[in-house]
Amino acid sequence: MDPQTFMEVATVVTKLKMYPYFDIAHYLLMCISVRDDMPQAQPNQQPFWRKHPLSTWISSMLICFAGSLIANLLLGEPIITPFKDHRSILTFTIVWYLVYYSPFDLVYKVTKFLPVKIVISMLKECQRAHKVYHGVYHTAKIYPNSLLVIVIIGTVKGSGGGLMKNFERLIRGLWIPGTNEILQPSYTTKASFVAATVFLLERLNYITVPHAVIYFGVVIFFVYFKLSSILLGINDPFSPFENLFCALFMGGMWDAMRRAVSKEPKKEEENDIRNDVIKSKEEKKKD
Amino acid sequence: MDPQTFMEVATVVTKLKMYPYFDIAHYLLMCISVRDDMPQAQPNQQPFWRKHPLSTWISSMLICFAGSLIANLLLGEPIITPFKDHRSILTFTIVWYLVYYSPFDLVYKVTKFLPVKIVISMLKECQRAHKVYHGVYHTAKIYPNSLLVIVIIGTVKGSGGGLMKNFERLIRGLWIPGTNEILQPSYTTKASFVAATVFLLERLNYITVPHAVIYFGVVIFFVYFKLSSILLGINDPFSPFENLFCALFMGGMWDAMRRAVSKEPKKEEENDIRNDVIKSKEEKKKD
Amino acid sequence: MDPQTFMEVATVVTKLKMYPYFDIAHYLLMCISVRDDMPQAQPNQQPFWRKHPLSTWISSMLICFAGSLIANLLLGEPIITPFKDHRSILTFTIVWYLVYYSPFDLVYKVTKFLPVKIVISMLKECQRAHKVYHGVYHTAKIYPNSLLVIVIIGTVKGSGGGLMKNFERLIRGLWIPGTNEILQPSYTTKASFVAATVFLLERLNYITVPHAVIYFGVVIFFVYFKLSSILLGINDPFSPFENLFCALFMGGMWDAMRRAVSKEPKKEEENDIRNDVIKSKEEKKKD
Repeated sequence: MDPQTFMEVATVVTKLKMYPYFDIAHYLLMCISVRDDMPQAQPNQQPFWRKHPLSTWISSMLICFAGSLIANLLLGEPIITPFKDHRSILTFTIVWYLVYYSPFDLVYKVTKFLPVKIVISMLKECQRAHKVYHGVYHTAKIYPNSLLVIVIIGTVKGSGGGLMKNFERLIRGLWIPGTNEILQPSYTTKASFVAATVFLLERLNYITVPHAVIYFGVVIFFVYFKLSSILLGINDPFSPFENLFCALFMGGMWDAMRRAVSKEPKKEEENDIRNDVIKSKEEKKKD
Repeated sequence: MDPQTFMEVATVVTKLKMYPYFDIAHYLLMCISVRDDMPQAQPNQQPFWRKHPLSTWISSMLICFAGSLIANLLLGEPIITPFKDHRSILTFTIVWYLVYYSPFDLVYKVTKFLPVKIVISMLKECQRAHKVYHGVYHTAKIYPNSLLVIVIIGTVKGSGGGLMKNFERLIRGLWIPGTNEILQPSYTTKASFVAATVFLLERLNYITVPHAVIYFGVVIFFVYFKLSSILLGINDPFSPFENLFCALFMGGMWDAMRRAVSKEPKKEEENDIRNDVIKSKEEKKKD
Repeated sequence: MDPQTFMEVATVVTKLKMYPYFDIAHYLLMCISVRDDMPQAQPNQQPFWRKHPLSTWISSMLICFAGSLIANLLLGEPIITPFKDHRSILTFTIVWYLVYYSPFDLVYKVTKFLPVKIVISMLKECQRAHKVYHGVYHTAKIYPNSLLVIVIIGTVKGSGGGLMKNFERLIRGLWIPGTNEILQPSYTTKASFVAATVFLLERLNYITVPHAVIYFGVVIFFVYFKLSSILLGINDPFSPFENLFCALFMGGMWDAMRRAVSKEPKKEEENDIRNDVIKSKEEKKKD
């Protein structure tokens, strides 16, 4: 691509308004994720959202605005702030209504249709990049020297839904303590963490590329891996690095050393670390 | 009633001081509701509150001050604020002590005696109206344009106990995730919501009746339905409207349309919506 | 001991810097307490911390900084404040790494070795006194007249770990609602409460001993009972007083009176209260 065209596209992407299309895509996908998490209704019985509209609305809302809600709680700002923006709440409510109660379940079915899903997911990933960037930007203004705080808030803004999951389920009367986002971080949380780190490094002038290029790069990174996940089923491009890191630094290296020191003649000795990587990969899958 | 006398009574009610009688009535009923929620002790075993006074005190306190605690959390104010008011905490502690540890269980038994219970419940409903009004008034000062925030805080101030229930039980070592106030909103929550909406409409000058009349109206509304609930067992005067609304807008209308479109000759077709109403009523009862 | 030497020692103790030795001792013991709380790994399986390093780090962090986190939440200050102090977080992370992943599990085993454990526990108790004092001091500046708030924040700063336990376990995918710090307060919580009360009384000029003596007295009190607990297995020096208080004021007295009034000729009547004390002690143990 011609570098000047690239820069122009990148600048346009940087200045995109999130409202309405990107926000609607976000609300659509989040409401559908909540709906898909609900237990299957028995035949001859109404599904959960027909019997408990208030609970459905509040749990969908908690997921859609999770990033702001958790970031506000951590930063000591009023948690209720997202409710001050009537336009967002109204847009969310319309999307929520259409996802759950549209005639012939049309909106839900259309959104699940692959080409539509791809477009909406791409819009949503743009919105994620925007949220991570603004999380980093906003926090860096109030805590300029607290690098860790900046990265945490950026990550939370980009992937609040996962962290809210347990409490969102509680609103729907479900309590599944055995899984949570911190125990098994999802790809989106890790990607948001990487993006927040990149934006922070830019702010600290460690990356001297123009802002539009960095921002566009993060958007492409988000969109690319989302498409891989939908089309190719690659769920976590980080996991090989992670497994290697865990196997090396989270005890695996010392295990290997201990076996070397104990000097027992073992056949498996030479491929210890590789085994560890494979084993932990399998355990992850079983989880 | 003579209009002038009515206005005078209404003005007196508007200016009632909550401390001490109304607050004591509130603490009494809340402590009793916590006590009644405790599991029955085995014969030859001491009840929960004899073995765990600290847990009993804190869980009762959480329920008595639930409205302020949750509203403070949502508005980003210090959660601990209710503890700054030593007089309330002391009054609460005395009431708490009398409910749980009074000689011959006198206070508990007297409060359960119907005529006494009616008087105390009436006092408590006056206090609820007062709390909803002050929640709306206080929030409208700090967030003048955030209608949704104002209504939410008004509702929470009026019926915080229900929302706190799950966490209050956790303090007592109980965890019942399958029920919560949002999943099955109680009558008091709905009534507080209606009252908060009325007070908000008054503030926005959509209701041009004198303030004392509106306030007195809300008090009468609270007291009237509380008495219906105690004396006649009418637990939720809102439920018919709610069921109709749910049956019409939360999918029922589209179900009816779908059946009409599919053009199958069904005998039940004409009374579909009525059936839906009845069915959802039954399901509510089963819940 | 010569009074002047005593005063000099007390003054030195008052002015001790917490960083690095005392903080490291605190992080060591807290990380070990989290590790000991993890379920035993099956043979041929890796322990929890090898499979979930992020969850291990966050749950250890929640316990190590529990006092600040909870106090910040209660006082409406940003919860994320502890993360602004990069030096503490880095120190904590190094200690955490060494406790869980050190070669040959050396750090864990050495810390469990009795003489080392005693020294580290003594350092940690000094740090506890320091935290309680600074909790009281900081809160008394912002809420000078709120005695209850001051004592609560002092207690929380001294023994936040216990209160955080349930949520820390949730991060590790465990949920044990039947136990919590408020239901069965541990010795450290009670001791922190007593220390906070002493520091508050000093501030209110009810204790006219020099500050260094009071502070040193609290340190000795913490260290002495910690040593009794480690060496002699005395877990709770408060429990006799507590049981007596409960038996007298939390209903036991009225039980005795009721039996006296009912005038049934009972042999056990004279030693009722003593029985109550013994019974509640046994029940405590069973809990």
